[in-house]
Amino acid sequence: MAAVEEREVAPKAGGEEEEQIVNPWEVSAKDGGKIDYDKLIDRFGCQRLDQSLVERVERLTSRPAHVFLRRGVFFAHRDFNDILDAYERGDKFYLYTGRGPSSEALHLGHLIPFMFTKYLQDAFKVPLVIQLTDDEKFLWKNLTIEESRRLARENAKDIIACGFDVSKTFIFSDFDYVGGAFYRNMVNVAKRVTYNQAVGIFGFTGEDHIGKVSFPPVQAVPSFPSSFPHLFSGKENLRCLIPCAIDQDPYFRMTRDVAPRIGYHKPALIESSFFPALQGENGKMSASDPNSAIYVTDSAKEIKTKVNRYAFSGGQDSVEKHRQLGANLEVDIPIKYLSFFLDDDVELEHIKKEYGAGRMLTGEVKQRLVEVLTELVERHRRARASVTDEMVDAFMAVRPLPHMFD
Amino acid sequence: MAAVEEREVAPKAGGEEEEQIVNPWEVSAKDGGKIDYDKLIDRFGCQRLDQSLVERVERLTSRPAHVFLRRGVFFAHRDFNDILDAYERGDKFYLYTGRGPSSEALHLGHLIPFMFTKYLQDAFKVPLVIQLTDDEKFLWKNLTIEESRRLARENAKDIIACGFDVSKTFIFSDFDYVGGAFYRNMVNVAKRVTYNQAVGIFGFTGEDHIGKVSFPPVQAVPSFPSSFPHLFSGKENLRCLIPCAIDQDPYFRMTRDVAPRIGYHKPALIESSFFPALQGENGKMSASDPNSAIYVTDSAKEIKTKVNRYAFSGGQDSVEKHRQLGANLEVDIPIKYLSFFLDDDVELEHIKKEYGAGRMLTGEVKQRLVEVLTELVERHRRARASVTDEMVDAFMAVRPLPHMFD
Repeated sequence: MAAVEEREVAPKAGGEEEEQIVNPWEVSAKDGGKIDYDKLIDRFGCQRLDQSLVERVERLTSRPAHVFLRRGVFFAHRDFNDILDAYERGDKFYLYTGRGPSSEALHLGHLIPFMFTKYLQDAFKVPLVIQLTDDEKFLWKNLTIEESRRLARENAKDIIACGFDVSKTFIFSDFDYVGGAFYRNMVNVAKRVTYNQAVGIFGFTGEDHIGKVSFPPVQAVPSFPSSFPHLFSGKENLRCLIPCAIDQDPYFRMTRDVAPRIGYHKPALIESSFFPALQGENGKMSASDPNSAIYVTDSAKEIKTKVNRYAFSGGQDSVEKHRQLGANLEVDIPIKYLSFFLDDDVELEHIKKEYGAGRMLTGEVKQRLVEVLTELVERHRRARASVTDEMVDAFMAVRPLPHMFD
Repeated sequence: MAAVEEREVAPKAGGEEEEQIVNPWEVSAKDGGKIDYDKLIDRFGCQRLDQSLVERVERLTSRPAHVFLRRGVFFAHRDFNDILDAYERGDKFYLYTGRGPSSEALHLGHLIPFMFTKYLQDAFKVPLVIQLTDDEKFLWKNLTIEESRRLARENAKDIIACGFDVSKTFIFSDFDYVGGAFYRNMVNVAKRVTYNQAVGIFGFTGEDHIGKVSFPPVQAVPSFPSSFPHLFSGKENLRCLIPCAIDQDPYFRMTRDVAPRIGYHKPALIESSFFPALQGENGKMSASDPNSAIYVTDSAKEIKTKVNRYAFSGGQDSVEKHRQLGANLEVDIPIKYLSFFLDDDVELEHIKKEYGAGRMLTGEVKQRLVEVLTELVERHRRARASVTDEMVDAFMAVRPLPHMFD
């Protein structure tokens, strides 16, 4: 193994000792329990995003931190402080996030990195590249190339509906954009990762096809400004910040290991926990179980039914017992969902206090959640309906962005 | 292993039982002897190119077969008869060949596939794509990306100097051209080859970098017309014929295994033996030993010195013994070289007869060879000097070729 910075060393991909499993393709807690994020930080070698860093962001951007930041949804990072140091010095950076377009309709968990990235773009006034890994989904799922590309375009509409600034945002599909400078960077990365290292990071086996082995450099190189000559020509030293869920960390451990060896900054990361399934907090929501998630296409009625029927409650079995003992907020999904999507800190605290003390019932909390989610989904649906094919073309056009730092 | 046509099954890449080794990166005979081409045909599962096929080519093209064909330099094939069947029915095909640009100056061995491909293009009046695998050379050699790309362009000048028709020929560098439809085909191939299969075909180890594992689909997909939408849009059913040296066979065994599974014709192959080193016939010429090869940049004086000093002779130690026993033509390099480059069949037969009988001396044969090579190299040098950067741009432009079948 070549010179690897100590904390960048790739641990095993799967869960050693039958531990929780967190990698880009599987997230599952130990024995059906909750994901242990402290252990994850330790195992991955990233850093906890603490309160002082949140306050620093507020100072630097002169605005309140996003709810996902102040409530610890984004809870871990790599070198985010370096990005803030650079920003404070007046240096610029750019944002990189992405999505694997494996399904038609997004669920709420899919929106989280985009809602947060939009906040970062607005707060720091920086350009953003969004990678749609249609190649990855073709390689891992039972989809045709054409279907993967179609889903990429459909998903781009949902992403655009999150409100990104077209003058600062470039969305690209790998099947369309890979090539030229981007491909040269891919090959440059691939030359610096051995098969054994890739196995260590991603857990590939000999029966996996070579498309899987070839893919990690594709997700690595948007971290390097030279992959986007139409945007960053002459700015090859620009730093990159990647907001993502922590299951993507293996890709960027690999990227950070290679980056300095090929003359680039390591990309910085800001990493979120997983948005839990309605049934409880032992993993991500699953696209294969429609009742595990709220989709952005769900009707008000569907939202109401799903929340009332499936959202795991920390309330007690009977009203009497509940009035006496109060709800267990730690396992309660309506409270968890509200902490993601209810902006009002005061109201959230009030609900938690009343519900925890047994003065508020599960039904009342769920009703408030249904209101919040219905409004969110309704707003998204209206925004998406107004996204035209011309807008998709505009975001995906390979073009300079002269106002990307304005 | 998925359904694989029997003769397409990949044997081990290296030489089992310390046999001769022939793969894209190494060619060496058993115990320093000659490459056993019959064994190679048997092990690779290709077919011998027999006299009846040569005669069929002459009939179909109404011209004498190229010297490389009638003297067995191109000695093996895969489905070449199918290409001829299709051609006879009035169906078109296209040619695909390539070069890994690892050195500045080409030697005579490098010219052979291009000289032969030019003949095929002229005789069959078909389009041609030429892949410059600058990515491969970056991955395997100690070259920078920039240097690999520069060498690709320099080598393109030598290739153009072979006389290709710009209205029928597209030359491309992987670092520049990979992307879009080409990349989609790469990923489509990669999804159908397991790592274990790639190890079986190419002999990769776990310490090899993943760039090597990722590369084979890059060399595979020029075999599919859809990789060149600017040329073959609407002609996705066009057959492909690949003239190459037999060490490239592993790539195309893999390609032929995958092709029908993704809806393409298997590419047909016509495969040459290796042009021997001056020191004797136990492998290819080596770019790392300048005295093992005649370069297209060698002066008349250098050619004379190299042939006289290094060309392995089958003549006897003394003139008396030579007059008595004659030369051993089987191991004689001047005779071998003349059989590649002396067009005149009658003169070649005369030399072989006289030399084999001892009536002609090594020095006389070498002198004739020096004349032939000097003329060839001089002609190439003149042609190359007239290749401008504009001509390179013209051949490498991504453009339709409306007259490619004229």
